[in-house]
Amino acid sequence: MPKVTQEHRDARRRQILAAAREVFAAKGFAQTSTGEIVAASGLSTGAVYSYFPSKNDLVAAVCESAVEDLVDLAALRDPGELLDRIRARHGSHGRLMTQVWAEAAVSPGLAARIRVRLADDQAKVADLIGQDRRSRGLPDTADHLGVAGALLALLTGYSQRLAVGQDMDTPGFRHALEALLGDAV
Amino acid sequence: MPKVTQEHRDARRRQILAAAREVFAAKGFAQTSTGEIVAASGLSTGAVYSYFPSKNDLVAAVCESAVEDLVDLAALRDPGELLDRIRARHGSHGRLMTQVWAEAAVSPGLAARIRVRLADDQAKVADLIGQDRRSRGLPDTADHLGVAGALLALLTGYSQRLAVGQDMDTPGFRHALEALLGDAV
Repeated sequence: MPKVTQEHRDARRRQILAAAREVFAAKGFAQTSTGEIVAASGLSTGAVYSYFPSKNDLVAAVCESAVEDLVDLAALRDPGELLDRIRARHGSHGRLMTQVWAEAAVSPGLAARIRVRLADDQAKVADLIGQDRRSRGLPDTADHLGVAGALLALLTGYSQRLAVGQDMDTPGFRHALEALLGDAV
Repeated sequence: MPKVTQEHRDARRRQILAAAREVFAAKGFAQTSTGEIVAASGLSTGAVYSYFPSKNDLVAAVCESAVEDLVDLAALRDPGELLDRIRARHGSHGRLMTQVWAEAAVSPGLAARIRVRLADDQAKVADLIGQDRRSRGLPDTADHLGVAGALLALLTGYSQRLAVGQDMDTPGFRHALEALLGDAV
């Protein structure tokens, strides 16, 4: 029997998650059956079940992988770039994120897992804000975690609006985003 | 046969919507049957159907009524007050809003109706920002609609986080919110 490498297993897992993301984004979690994900993955039912024994496992894995790191130092220095990034990936991914929030809001176990990812992301962005301040010789006194939270809240709201077909990006919107950051960064 | 007044009809409609909101907030749209809403409303099946012929009509009406006006002039001058208002109503309402975003993201017809409500709300907030500027003798030149959009995006994101059990409100968060407004208001 050929030995299945870890890389092979990881690739299979990614393949299943990519299929699950597509189907969930199009139909929502509740309306999707595991059979549809199996069909979209191109693998066998047994193969999919060996990675994800239940639909809940698929939902949880998709939700955790959907929380993306969007912010880096370059984007902090050019906040319009952040909006461009969100706009570029908003179609299927944005719809999926609305499903993730909705599912987590009624699933305490899933919410707990999502919170860990969100808190990690917020801490990373706070670190970047601190780095940026130091690189520009600014005093390192602000509550970077709070500023990072405000930035991420605004980006979340922007993404939700895009998901229902409303792009709020205007010069005034960018100006307000820069003010939010500029005052503290 | 007694004449049914418009007030009576409006009260009945509100009674059904209140029941639908509770059930939808707890279980999500997809997992809720019309029968459960009938039971929660305390009315007969026929009565509920005479107001809302299908579950889709209930979903649409609940979604439209869920987009609330949160911002007034007092709250604009004390942004922390805005966060307090969202926190105060976040339990059931916040969970419901996550369902509304998710449903609208996969239902183009519903998304169109929601966009009208969101655009109305944004225009109202932009007017308030203009009023506030004029009352303080500031020049009326900023893109108020864009600033209103940034404010509403941030509040949406804050509400989504609360719905998954994460309160981002800290002094730094409020400071960033004030900067977003203060630069333009």
